[in-house]
Amino acid sequence: MFDIVIIAGGRGQRFWPKSTETMPKQFHKIVSEKTMIQETLYRVYPEIELENIFIVAGDGLIPVIVDQLPLIQKQNLIAEPVGKNTAPAIGLAAVYLYKRDPGAVMTVLTADHVVEPREDFLKALRAAARAAEMGHLVTFGIKPDRPATEYGYIEIGDRIQGDFKLDVYSVKMFREKPTCELARKFVESGTFLWNSGLFAFRVKVILDAMKRYMPSLYTGLMKIYESIGTAHERSVKIDEFDKFENISIDYGVMEKAGNIVCVKPEFLWDDVGSWGALSRHREKDPKGNIVQGNTVMVNSNNNIVLGEENSIISLIGIDNVIVVKEKDKVLICHRSQDQKVRDALKVMSENKKFRKYI
Amino acid sequence: MFDIVIIAGGRGQRFWPKSTETMPKQFHKIVSEKTMIQETLYRVYPEIELENIFIVAGDGLIPVIVDQLPLIQKQNLIAEPVGKNTAPAIGLAAVYLYKRDPGAVMTVLTADHVVEPREDFLKALRAAARAAEMGHLVTFGIKPDRPATEYGYIEIGDRIQGDFKLDVYSVKMFREKPTCELARKFVESGTFLWNSGLFAFRVKVILDAMKRYMPSLYTGLMKIYESIGTAHERSVKIDEFDKFENISIDYGVMEKAGNIVCVKPEFLWDDVGSWGALSRHREKDPKGNIVQGNTVMVNSNNNIVLGEENSIISLIGIDNVIVVKEKDKVLICHRSQDQKVRDALKVMSENKKFRKYI
Repeated sequence: MFDIVIIAGGRGQRFWPKSTETMPKQFHKIVSEKTMIQETLYRVYPEIELENIFIVAGDGLIPVIVDQLPLIQKQNLIAEPVGKNTAPAIGLAAVYLYKRDPGAVMTVLTADHVVEPREDFLKALRAAARAAEMGHLVTFGIKPDRPATEYGYIEIGDRIQGDFKLDVYSVKMFREKPTCELARKFVESGTFLWNSGLFAFRVKVILDAMKRYMPSLYTGLMKIYESIGTAHERSVKIDEFDKFENISIDYGVMEKAGNIVCVKPEFLWDDVGSWGALSRHREKDPKGNIVQGNTVMVNSNNNIVLGEENSIISLIGIDNVIVVKEKDKVLICHRSQDQKVRDALKVMSENKKFRKYI
Repeated sequence: MFDIVIIAGGRGQRFWPKSTETMPKQFHKIVSEKTMIQETLYRVYPEIELENIFIVAGDGLIPVIVDQLPLIQKQNLIAEPVGKNTAPAIGLAAVYLYKRDPGAVMTVLTADHVVEPREDFLKALRAAARAAEMGHLVTFGIKPDRPATEYGYIEIGDRIQGDFKLDVYSVKMFREKPTCELARKFVESGTFLWNSGLFAFRVKVILDAMKRYMPSLYTGLMKIYESIGTAHERSVKIDEFDKFENISIDYGVMEKAGNIVCVKPEFLWDDVGSWGALSRHREKDPKGNIVQGNTVMVNSNNNIVLGEENSIISLIGIDNVIVVKEKDKVLICHRSQDQKVRDALKVMSENKKFRKYI
C-alpha cells in the first residue's frame, strides 16, 4: 500500500477572475462539473482508501477543502502556515507520514491537473510505488503530443529492470521549459518526456535527499517532526516555515539527486495552465465556441465564454477570444495572450482601488 | 415665442445592455456625465422658459422623466398610452399645444441626440420658428462631414427669402438611407443634407397637414382634443392610440407635403445611433481607448469599454472592441458590427430564459 499526498497550494493567478488568492484554481469547476480537487480525489478514491489520502494546503484553504471534500479525514489535512512552494510542502507531508509509518511510500499529486483515463493513472501510481519501494525517487514523464514550450522535460535513459507492470527508465537530465525549436527536437527524439510534477518516493528516501541537498530545510522539518503531537506543534511549524526557502522540489532535490527514475505512463495529462487549455477539455459548439452560462453569440467563432446562470453575455463579431465573468469581474482576453492574465493582475495589485478584485 | 416638444420615445435597442425597454438610451449617460435627455433640456433651458418646454413619452417612462428632469412642469408632460412612432407622438403634442394656444409654434427635438454648440442650436431654433410662423413645415438639414449611410438625406433647392438670420432653403426631395456610393455623391453635391429628425411648425399647420395626408390619425387626434380636460381624456387617448398606425412623421407627412423648407444650421449634430458613435464624443487615452469605470488594459487598443464603479473589466490583447457591462449584462461587440446589437436582442427575445435581460 502507499499514501497519496495531494498538494493543494498555488495562487492560481492564470485563472483570474474565477481563481483568486483565497479560492485558487483547484477549487473551481474548470473542466467539468466537479472542482479540480474533487476530480483529483475521485481519480484515486475509492481504489485508494481514505486513511491513505492526505492533503497539504495553506491554513486559509483548509475550510474550503473540508467543504469540497467532506470525505477526507480531518487528521489527514496537513496545514502549511504559509505557502513556500513544493519542497517545503512535500517535506512537511513526509515528516507527518514518517511519524505515522517510517516505511511509508508517498505519491505526490497536484490538485489542479487533468489526467485520464483514471485506470491508466491508477496503474501508473502502482508502478511508481513499486519503484519507490526500491529506493528510487520516481517522476512521471508524459509522452508529448506536441512541442509544448510551457512544460519542463525529462530526458530518459535506459529501461530499469523490474516487475513494475509499466516501463520505468533512468533519468539523464531535467530540462527547463524549452524554446519552440528545442521543444520540436525534444519531441522528435522520443527520449524527452513532459515533467508532470507528479512524484513517488519512500518518505525516508525523500527526507534523506533533503538532508543532503537542502540541509536547512531538513533541519527545520526535523524540528517539526519532533513537535508533532506536542503543545508546540503549531508554533514550531510557524517558526520553521517562516525560515524555509521558497523552492520547488524539482530545483531543490530532483535536479541534483542520483537515484531518480521516470515512469512512462499511458494516461493523458494536462496541467491546464491557462484559460486556453479549456479548448482541449470542453465540448465545442458547431462554431467552435465553448460556452457556459447564458450567452448569445452573433457572428462569433472559436471563443471560450464562461458566464453565469444569473447573468448574460453577448458576443457580436468576436473571434478567438476568452471571456470569463465571475460576479463583479470580467476578463476579455485574446486566446493568443492568455499567458498575460498575470500582467493584468500585476496592474491590479499595484493599484489600491483594484486590489480587492485579485 | 415658441414651444419646445422633446420626443422621448424610442426603444433604444442599439444601446443594450445599458438601454432597455423600460430605460431607453435617452435616460443614460451615454456621452457625458448628464443623461441624454438632461443634455437635451439644458441645451434649451434657461433660454427657453420651463412653461414652454414639453415632453412626450410613453406612460411608463413618466416616472423616470420626473426623476431625471424635476424642473419640468407636471402639466407639460404629455403621456402616450403606447409608443406609435413620431407621427402620433407629434400629433398628440400638437393637439395639447393647440388647446393651450391655437397660434402656437412648436419645435420638435429628439431626446437622445448630440448637438453642439448650444448657441448655434438656439440660433437655428429661432430661425426655424420664424419660418414656421410663416406657415412652413420646417426641417433641419445638417451639412454632412462624411458619406454617412445610416442617415436619410434632404435635397435642398433655392434659398427662401426672409429675415431668418440663417439660411433657409426649399426642399426638393427626401431621400432614404443611401448606399455608400450614393452617399458619396450626395456629399460631393453640396445640396444634400442629413435629415436630423428635428422639426418646427405652427401646430395649426401640422394638424392641417395631418388632416390631408393622415386623415385617420387626424380624426383620432381631434377626438383626443375634444376630450382634453374631461373625465374621458385618458380613456379616449387609450382608445385612439390603439387605432393609430405606427408611422413616422417623415413618411406620414413630410415626404408628401408641399410647404416644406429646410434650415441649414451651423451646429454639429449626431444621432449617436450605436455604441461606436461614442468615439466621436468621448476622450480617448493614448492607446485610443475610451474607458469608463474600473478597467485594466494589457496590449489593448482602440476599444470602447464602459464598466461600472463597483466592478472591474480587464482586456488583454483586444483591439477595436466595444465592451459594455451593466450589472448582470455584458456586451462584447466588434466595432465594425455595432449595428448588430439588435440581432442579439432578437435572439434574446425569442428565448424565454433570456427575455428578462432585454
